[in-house]
Amino acid sequence: MFSGTKLPRIGTYNVNVVLSSIQVSEGTSRVEIAQRTGLTAQTVSVIVRRLIESGIVQESGSVPSAGGKPRRTLRINPTAAYVVGIHFDPTEVSIVVVDMTGQALARSHHELSPGLKPEALIDQAAQVARKLLANLGVLDERVLGVGAACPGPIDQSRGLVVSPPRRDRWTEVPIKRLLKHYIGFEVIIDNDANAAAIGERWAGHGRSASDFAFLYLGTGIGGAMFLSNNIYRGASLNAGEFGHIVVEPNGTPCYCGNCGCLEAMCSSAAITRNVHAELDMGRESLLAPVYQKDPVLVDHAAICLAAVQRDEVARRVIDKAAEYIAECAVTIANALDVELLVLGGKGVTHVADIYKDKVTEFLRSRPLARKTHTVRVATSEMGGDGAALGAAALVLHANYAPNTAQLVNVQA
Amino acid sequence: MFSGTKLPRIGTYNVNVVLSSIQVSEGTSRVEIAQRTGLTAQTVSVIVRRLIESGIVQESGSVPSAGGKPRRTLRINPTAAYVVGIHFDPTEVSIVVVDMTGQALARSHHELSPGLKPEALIDQAAQVARKLLANLGVLDERVLGVGAACPGPIDQSRGLVVSPPRRDRWTEVPIKRLLKHYIGFEVIIDNDANAAAIGERWAGHGRSASDFAFLYLGTGIGGAMFLSNNIYRGASLNAGEFGHIVVEPNGTPCYCGNCGCLEAMCSSAAITRNVHAELDMGRESLLAPVYQKDPVLVDHAAICLAAVQRDEVARRVIDKAAEYIAECAVTIANALDVELLVLGGKGVTHVADIYKDKVTEFLRSRPLARKTHTVRVATSEMGGDGAALGAAALVLHANYAPNTAQLVNVQA
Repeated sequence: MFSGTKLPRIGTYNVNVVLSSIQVSEGTSRVEIAQRTGLTAQTVSVIVRRLIESGIVQESGSVPSAGGKPRRTLRINPTAAYVVGIHFDPTEVSIVVVDMTGQALARSHHELSPGLKPEALIDQAAQVARKLLANLGVLDERVLGVGAACPGPIDQSRGLVVSPPRRDRWTEVPIKRLLKHYIGFEVIIDNDANAAAIGERWAGHGRSASDFAFLYLGTGIGGAMFLSNNIYRGASLNAGEFGHIVVEPNGTPCYCGNCGCLEAMCSSAAITRNVHAELDMGRESLLAPVYQKDPVLVDHAAICLAAVQRDEVARRVIDKAAEYIAECAVTIANALDVELLVLGGKGVTHVADIYKDKVTEFLRSRPLARKTHTVRVATSEMGGDGAALGAAALVLHANYAPNTAQLVNVQA
Repeated sequence: MFSGTKLPRIGTYNVNVVLSSIQVSEGTSRVEIAQRTGLTAQTVSVIVRRLIESGIVQESGSVPSAGGKPRRTLRINPTAAYVVGIHFDPTEVSIVVVDMTGQALARSHHELSPGLKPEALIDQAAQVARKLLANLGVLDERVLGVGAACPGPIDQSRGLVVSPPRRDRWTEVPIKRLLKHYIGFEVIIDNDANAAAIGERWAGHGRSASDFAFLYLGTGIGGAMFLSNNIYRGASLNAGEFGHIVVEPNGTPCYCGNCGCLEAMCSSAAITRNVHAELDMGRESLLAPVYQKDPVLVDHAAICLAAVQRDEVARRVIDKAAEYIAECAVTIANALDVELLVLGGKGVTHVADIYKDKVTEFLRSRPLARKTHTVRVATSEMGGDGAALGAAALVLHANYAPNTAQLVNVQA
């Protein structure tokens, strides 16, 4: 059901509309904001004054205007606030500190020792984050909060990670409460794909798109979507499982219950398994000598690197994965009619262009997708830090993005 | 980009929130509305008085209350307004007149003679609609408008049907302008799947769901979705092409550019072709004698009827179609995390239960879909009139549904 709206909410909404208008531009003016938002010049002026007084927005330089008086250029003040982003991945933890514009000021990566319990890990991550802030000289009162990206599914109402596939220790971990306890700041959590998409919205390709989908190639394959300018989470907050779209009905069985879904065919583990199988058959490859020494060394990263170095075995497996990803992209485009599809996550390292080219080719060669709308394809430029940067963006987004939910708490 | 909001819009929004609250209930009270919407008792009271004065809402009876004073029961006044719904299908035109609650008061179906030009057909449909209104004694000033459901894709900005697959005559037909010209009322157009979904939202299974998908089995296979309580149309207004999700990568090529998509495998033409192929091989079937007389008589409707009469040939083909539909439903559930999936369109006539049971079985047996959320499956109870009733609901929805777009014109 819908619920009604009240006057005070409009104030917050319009402030965030103005702020967003400044954030997505490379310098803008009060006049431009009024033109773009439909708010009166007077309303914009009042809001901008308030934003400047609070230090969130700053005037920097000016541009000539037709009317004579030069227009002052408005920008987000990068030092207005700082946010910590933490990505808890099955194999490593990435931590970033970003400024108000979402730019990373400090980064830290830690491989995980397999025996570490979640609580100990969260404690360690909090200590590292505290140290990064101290090194930057950021005072506590300037820290807006901490965002954490975790493997899904997430129970938002309880702040839990709920039974992530193949990570038994992380079942029902109250990550929001524990992290807040150890770090001492407010914490927002979300799954890695949603975080990466919000990061893209805040500081990447998604800045200009009202409808875009994010295909997240991490340890598993997930997804997220911005629809009608809002992140869409679904009835149970588990939308975007693009990794479980079937691309090969007779393919490998997946824990999701499908056979041959994208994750079963193209996860980093599946790609590694397929290359190992070819090497076991004695195929010629740059990877063969290393594989004979120690198969573990021929991991997903090594395979992707070999693929761009034109190793035939690696390239064949990656090309097949690219086709499956492209099939999935066509389904996403047809079902969701997004204007932009972003590919990201550490699974695209080295092979981003191979995947992007194949997805673009498939979308261009399918008349339905081509005729009714074109879909721009992009690869995230945030690299391996995408989910950590996205985790930080969760906090910026929650505080500053205009969201109709601010107007009308929609109840389930 | 987002645009700002202004005070007058809030009034309309809250009126529609109250109206919607009355519309989805089987009789409600001012107190209940205030509880449900979060609006103050006074605001609800003012809005309800206005709605009663304008004749849209009526008080009918009362229920005892704990506080002593009995609460007056509020309902939509069915006779407050009337709407015409017209469904232009490749093979027939269906016309309904509905009251303010979305209930049909009159219906009319016309098979199309193949030679008829779109403009002549639109003229005829307008005349029939006018006659239905006259027979009901509905005065022109009580007609809220006309909704038209057409095969997609639709260009909303120009009011055109754009190149529907396999219907060359309907390319670039300015249906909105022509229909308005011939019928003399305001016209809203949408594709058949969106119309059917909005009909479901207004008067069917979708009344209580914030996130639901509609799989529309018509001449082709389309789809639509309500996400976060709003119909989601996509960046180019072409979202919901569930019929072009691939279910058999080595299957029949489709005009969409995919092979083995749901429409290629399960459209009424595909089902008919598959049954004919079996009959050509001399399989025993209830349908064989008719087929030998005239193959044209063994059409999709006859096949569906034979399937529920346990004819083996028909049943085998329909069961296979049910499996493909169920595969597609799993993809929709995983990607969109809807709480409800409605199956509808004339393609489910007779076989609705077969399809519904298979979809339910697949959704229950896939751990990913089952663990994170359950999806209710329903078949539309609007029968062959679903798109025409939905077309009428387009007008009710556009006028009376609370929509955050009323608050914040979101610009592309």
